[in-house]
Amino acid sequence: MVIIGELINTSRPAIREAVEKRDAEYIKSVALDQTKSGANYIDVNCGTMVNDEEEVMAWLVNTVQEVVETPLCIDSPNEKALEVGLALCKNGQPMINSISDERDRFDAVLPLVLKYKAKIIALCMDETGVPTTADERIRVAKNLYAKLTAAGVPEGDIHFDPLVKPISVVNNAGIEVLESIKLLKAMYPNTHFACGLSNISFGLPNRKILNRLFVVQTMTLGMDGYILNPTDKGMMGIIYASNALLAKDDYCSKYLMAFRNGLYE
Amino acid sequence: MVIIGELINTSRPAIREAVEKRDAEYIKSVALDQTKSGANYIDVNCGTMVNDEEEVMAWLVNTVQEVVETPLCIDSPNEKALEVGLALCKNGQPMINSISDERDRFDAVLPLVLKYKAKIIALCMDETGVPTTADERIRVAKNLYAKLTAAGVPEGDIHFDPLVKPISVVNNAGIEVLESIKLLKAMYPNTHFACGLSNISFGLPNRKILNRLFVVQTMTLGMDGYILNPTDKGMMGIIYASNALLAKDDYCSKYLMAFRNGLYE
Repeated sequence: MVIIGELINTSRPAIREAVEKRDAEYIKSVALDQTKSGANYIDVNCGTMVNDEEEVMAWLVNTVQEVVETPLCIDSPNEKALEVGLALCKNGQPMINSISDERDRFDAVLPLVLKYKAKIIALCMDETGVPTTADERIRVAKNLYAKLTAAGVPEGDIHFDPLVKPISVVNNAGIEVLESIKLLKAMYPNTHFACGLSNISFGLPNRKILNRLFVVQTMTLGMDGYILNPTDKGMMGIIYASNALLAKDDYCSKYLMAFRNGLYE
Repeated sequence: MVIIGELINTSRPAIREAVEKRDAEYIKSVALDQTKSGANYIDVNCGTMVNDEEEVMAWLVNTVQEVVETPLCIDSPNEKALEVGLALCKNGQPMINSISDERDRFDAVLPLVLKYKAKIIALCMDETGVPTTADERIRVAKNLYAKLTAAGVPEGDIHFDPLVKPISVVNNAGIEVLESIKLLKAMYPNTHFACGLSNISFGLPNRKILNRLFVVQTMTLGMDGYILNPTDKGMMGIIYASNALLAKDDYCSKYLMAFRNGLYE
């Protein structure tokens, strides 16, 4: 299971404010909280800072690395900012968020994946947009798998993101993603997943419960990576409990630790 | 989805006391609460009343039927008590809890299934005991399916109970049940399930979360019947939310109703 902490993102007002003030202490505290809460990667995204994204990326990466050794997931729509961040990563294998089968994006990001031997989040979308059905997602995933592995990317470094749509808009949105996970897992058992799920509940009340249950449902079918807020105790508690039920927690020891740490209060 | 309300069971002290006092009002209130909370069947079990089980069964069935039209699930280890209850059922198709592939039990219960055209909960166990692996459960289920359908039981009336063991005792207990559901669903798509799940969490703290998440996991693989406490708002809320995520709730209308009814407080 890979948990990618999503909190260091300048689309969040508190992070934007900290970045504008170059408040390193705040950024460090958010990085540290995520690591202590169980994040295996720290996502760094300053895509909203359009005028100075590369400078901000460098500052964020350096600031985070002053306080944690958790590897980073460098996240940007801008390949130049990706490269600035990747070049500064010094802890473990970096991850890139993300590549897709849109031609320009693919061609721009692939060289970075290879140069930095990075894990890569592969979005199941191409020039035709975000798929609705499982079959469409599988078609894109096949293309991405073929092109990435042909270029030399180890299959274990590929993390598919099936891309989640809201069930309030498309009634089948959840089951098409569940079916995609099942099929991808069967086709490419050595690849992984990395997916943000909160879109599933857009437009509905009580989003928290839908988000949490969708994590349980996707884990049941083999999803093994999430981009989420690891300081959300309830969500992390649910992940530990699911892992215990799925026999991925010997002697339920992590579940018991989570219980003692108050994750189920 | 079939929810079988489990509360009218003399192993629960409050029910035992009400039975001993022949407190019909209390029994009626428990029946009504379960129906209002969404139970599709009301289980009636007085197996602990060993001296007068048949008389108590008759009284309970009549009492419950004075106040709800929900069909009943007649539940006893004693075939005579089963027959007393079944003969009095007047609302819809009754259910019998349960048959197994133990020879004596099978031979005693099958005639009742046929005579009362009842739905039948088929426990995946035989003379050799409760299975540990999915393969063992499937072996028993195949025998039961073959014998029940050969005798004329419609396959849609068969509800398999894979029988859940605690993950605190057998680490794989959860995934063996999940695998059993997947296999049974593929082999016999027209059959159903009916399963009590709380055993999964025996011996661990915070059982509620494990029980609820195991419902989500089993629903993800196609389980469609549970024996549980339908007045447990949190559990029912989770079932409605799961159904919405699984595209079994058009326009998320039942989920929205559950939200308005305070099931997620």
